[in-house]
Amino acid sequence: MSVMTIERKILEKNDEIARRNRAIFIFHKTFVINLVSSPGSGKTSILERTLERFNGSFKVGVIEGDVQTDFDAQRIAKHTPWVVQIVTNGGCHLEANLVEDALSKLDLSGMKALVIENVGNLVCPANYDLGEAHKVVVLSVTEGEDKPLKYPAMFRRASVLLLNKVDLLPHLRCNVELMKNNALSINPSLEIFETSCVTGKGIDAWCEWIRARLM
Amino acid sequence: MSVMTIERKILEKNDEIARRNRAIFIFHKTFVINLVSSPGSGKTSILERTLERFNGSFKVGVIEGDVQTDFDAQRIAKHTPWVVQIVTNGGCHLEANLVEDALSKLDLSGMKALVIENVGNLVCPANYDLGEAHKVVVLSVTEGEDKPLKYPAMFRRASVLLLNKVDLLPHLRCNVELMKNNALSINPSLEIFETSCVTGKGIDAWCEWIRARLM
Repeated sequence: MSVMTIERKILEKNDEIARRNRAIFIFHKTFVINLVSSPGSGKTSILERTLERFNGSFKVGVIEGDVQTDFDAQRIAKHTPWVVQIVTNGGCHLEANLVEDALSKLDLSGMKALVIENVGNLVCPANYDLGEAHKVVVLSVTEGEDKPLKYPAMFRRASVLLLNKVDLLPHLRCNVELMKNNALSINPSLEIFETSCVTGKGIDAWCEWIRARLM
Repeated sequence: MSVMTIERKILEKNDEIARRNRAIFIFHKTFVINLVSSPGSGKTSILERTLERFNGSFKVGVIEGDVQTDFDAQRIAKHTPWVVQIVTNGGCHLEANLVEDALSKLDLSGMKALVIENVGNLVCPANYDLGEAHKVVVLSVTEGEDKPLKYPAMFRRASVLLLNKVDLLPHLRCNVELMKNNALSINPSLEIFETSCVTGKGIDAWCEWIRARLM
């Protein structure tokens, strides 16, 4: 079998399991987000601020994907008891079967929302459906305006872009309008929120986006 | 053939071509760096500042690896005529055969140094030897102190860590000593330079590190 054939078969198998995961989420009326970004863009911090805002008003679960360590699950466990860590041991992205395994450790009954925090990688996770309702991509304004054009697949497949760390804008040479226009040129239907976990900017609007989609 | 077997065979084939590349570099007395990092850590900016410092005093080549676009090659072409762009079309890392192909477009004779700027990805490029003398990893201080622990393979395989964007430290909640200690706990022989492409801090020391290794 050729490498191309193997890759196609892996993706087909992944998509089949993702469809199964999606059916389970819909059955439980759980709204599921696949949160993706480069390393260090602020996924975990945004998730912490988000859980703080929701403040236990409904049941939220989190699946944490990391190459190594359970640091992120430890941070999230301060905000919700429903958190599962997946350590990929070198794997560069989450796959649907890893999420399926994690679901056996999460009680989905009454869980209104579930956030799957993917491995920090702006390339590989774009290709793997996990069964989520939406991919949400986080991009730090420190990363440069050109990133949506250089890593287009992720921006094409995401529904929302969280433009994070905007508190740093006064100290950067970053044209945030150009950054947004670059993202919109790849995906015109992308919904964009400017966020800061330091000042709290945009977190309310982002939380409202989630609330409006709960089943 | 199993997926594991295919993966092993790909890596074995890659290592064989990398050995061939390395022999070519040694024959030409070309010192080769494989520059790796997350997207937006500042690899291209550091390379621009580095080429400015060398100011044509010896022949330096650059191979630019990107998922899409030739923006980086355009930036680098202002500083050296010896630049080749590799577009991986979705591929998440450079492989030795792509570098081998690029070498057919670069005249190595008299080339004292060659920098291969890898795809922005802190996971996958760690596994692929390109034939370089050293891997150099760039980490922006905006990415958080925990990154060496969360993405250990890259830090384990690198000889140098460029801790970049230190001009932003006054505006960040970042403990730079903790960040360094985390990196050194993964790889005690890592040489660390704090750099800023805005203030120029550390660029001279980093350039000296390269100069001392020219053949």
